[in-house]
Amino acid sequence: MSIDDVYVIGWGMTPFGRHEVPGTTLGAKAIRMAMESSALEYSEVDALYVGHVYGGMVAGERVGALAGLAGVPTVNVENACASGSSAIIEAAYGISSGRYDVVAVCGFEKLTDSGGMLAPADDDYEGRLGLVFPGWHAMRARLYMDAFGTTREDLAGVTVKNRTHGAMNPLAQFPNPVTLDDVLTSREIATPLRLLDCCPRGDGGASVILASKKYLEAARRRHGSVVKIAGAGLFSGRTDGTYSPLFEDITHRATEAAFSTSGVTRDDVKFAEVHDCFSIAEPFRVEGLGLCEQGTYFDHLKDGKWNVGGSLPVNPSGGLLSKGHPLGATGVAQICEVAWQFSGGAGERQIDGADVALTHTRGGSVPGTEGGSCAVIVCVSA
Amino acid sequence: MSIDDVYVIGWGMTPFGRHEVPGTTLGAKAIRMAMESSALEYSEVDALYVGHVYGGMVAGERVGALAGLAGVPTVNVENACASGSSAIIEAAYGISSGRYDVVAVCGFEKLTDSGGMLAPADDDYEGRLGLVFPGWHAMRARLYMDAFGTTREDLAGVTVKNRTHGAMNPLAQFPNPVTLDDVLTSREIATPLRLLDCCPRGDGGASVILASKKYLEAARRRHGSVVKIAGAGLFSGRTDGTYSPLFEDITHRATEAAFSTSGVTRDDVKFAEVHDCFSIAEPFRVEGLGLCEQGTYFDHLKDGKWNVGGSLPVNPSGGLLSKGHPLGATGVAQICEVAWQFSGGAGERQIDGADVALTHTRGGSVPGTEGGSCAVIVCVSA
Repeated sequence: MSIDDVYVIGWGMTPFGRHEVPGTTLGAKAIRMAMESSALEYSEVDALYVGHVYGGMVAGERVGALAGLAGVPTVNVENACASGSSAIIEAAYGISSGRYDVVAVCGFEKLTDSGGMLAPADDDYEGRLGLVFPGWHAMRARLYMDAFGTTREDLAGVTVKNRTHGAMNPLAQFPNPVTLDDVLTSREIATPLRLLDCCPRGDGGASVILASKKYLEAARRRHGSVVKIAGAGLFSGRTDGTYSPLFEDITHRATEAAFSTSGVTRDDVKFAEVHDCFSIAEPFRVEGLGLCEQGTYFDHLKDGKWNVGGSLPVNPSGGLLSKGHPLGATGVAQICEVAWQFSGGAGERQIDGADVALTHTRGGSVPGTEGGSCAVIVCVSA
Repeated sequence: MSIDDVYVIGWGMTPFGRHEVPGTTLGAKAIRMAMESSALEYSEVDALYVGHVYGGMVAGERVGALAGLAGVPTVNVENACASGSSAIIEAAYGISSGRYDVVAVCGFEKLTDSGGMLAPADDDYEGRLGLVFPGWHAMRARLYMDAFGTTREDLAGVTVKNRTHGAMNPLAQFPNPVTLDDVLTSREIATPLRLLDCCPRGDGGASVILASKKYLEAARRRHGSVVKIAGAGLFSGRTDGTYSPLFEDITHRATEAAFSTSGVTRDDVKFAEVHDCFSIAEPFRVEGLGLCEQGTYFDHLKDGKWNVGGSLPVNPSGGLLSKGHPLGATGVAQICEVAWQFSGGAGERQIDGADVALTHTRGGSVPGTEGGSCAVIVCVSA
């Protein structure tokens, strides 16, 4: 079903990184930024959707109360790394269907409080047997490298690109570029992946204000161009054996669904924000999105295609590898990046003429399946 | 906005109580029961919404994979004790808007693994200072008793009623009735509340299959009468000082919203399932729902009005006090009860001629506000 006339009329995010305040405070701070960006009154907000993983019971309502939105219908949405994107998609359908006119969406997470890696769930027997996220991505890296002749140096190029982009993003957790040598000499995490192949733990909040068409003209006057949520796809992973381990079935299905009623095609896409939780994840996702042929991501990487300044920048914000990855905030922050790009507010990393973009998040482990949740959103300038 | 042509065509729940399997297994078991009840093929399910509080990252996707629904769009919805109801409301709007034709909704929880009471969130400063759920309800009990001359014995009558109802429900956690004396001599928890004034911790899963109008005739042939989701209200609590502590503003607002486009009124209601997490909660909720005047709940209790067999039974299933309260499962189990009542499958506790019912859940603590989340659903026989 199409998403009709849903626009991002306000946006904002905290810096990603270590913060000494609760996650709900970060979420509320982001909402206040987005509300200020929207120029709406708080009384105009009909509902609040909040994406987070570890915020705890009714964390979204606590965020809302802190932000000045106590009393509105509030829903907490969790879909692992796709939590923020899922919240946006559910909110967008809420507006498209006429249920609401204005919905505030927030994603936040506080990860620096917890030590070590994200623990698998008690009933995630694959994770409990060792197939945690770094291990799973490492196995996929070996598969990909074997199949397509990718080298360890090639892989490091993903991190180098995204850290170069992130160095142009004042809100990024890692604001400094790195060299191939930095990546290749960082400590091993899960062979062949090294520390700089992995996104960091971090804290942060991001928020967007979605609204129906009657708010569009005022938003255009305020921002120039704004983001129209033109299409979205959200899926869980299919059962093992129904897909190739060398191609992201879940990403492909979500992308097909997102484009199906969007009015644009892959050829129209000017840039993408994709879920590069590990360096190897970016080629899998870019190929799953259909932005290049399977097995050709690295050819284009070497040509500079995915760079800011190239013909199809991927992760101009710095992506998860550089901007950071406070789980619930990530998908919302991607839409913030699209909003900055479309409105000409992306500073040094501005992509000229950007009018169509994709965002992609994916995450979570479900034994016996390709994985938890994947969300793809097609954004068109309005 | 109205909810149009959304029907409950299948339903099922596990017994509530202590279970030795993971919560996701309970959720999946409930889905399989509901699917069997619906007589649909699994391939006909368009999406899955799962309400839970403590299931962990992508627990809903794990439930889906176990149940045979791997691959479908899946959303985890959390709103404390209103998680299951919120999942139903979001799913119902998904169908009403034409986004989906068939949505499986599941609520589950596994609480017996955790010791002691539910811990307040780190940033719930009221909870951290001692205003945990039993304490909050105890304070409200004192207020209510002072205001309306309610006695400790009166209060015990709520538990006696609901335990009497639960003794007619083979899926209830507490299948045995209790006496006034049992309640009054149980150990003190938070004065004036005693152990039998408090709902138990428990595990369980519940599921309903929601579908659009094209599935109605087949469902009627199968079940006789089914539930139409005729209206719903979902709100977070307003800021302290904007409401009276003697009347549930959040419940009132959710009820008004639920009735506003439902085509029925309070006068049409034949029974209600309400959130009796503590004995004192039932009068507050019944009055907030507008089923009697403020301060008169106990007069009607003594007249037998709220009994199965009375003119307006409240919690025929046994409610949380007897059936149990596995958080995410509770709101979904309430709709299962309505489905059993409407289709004539409620056994000993059957309410003859039941054709309009209310369900109500409410929970979660948000400092500085009335509370987390409240969901009210108006059900009409179809």
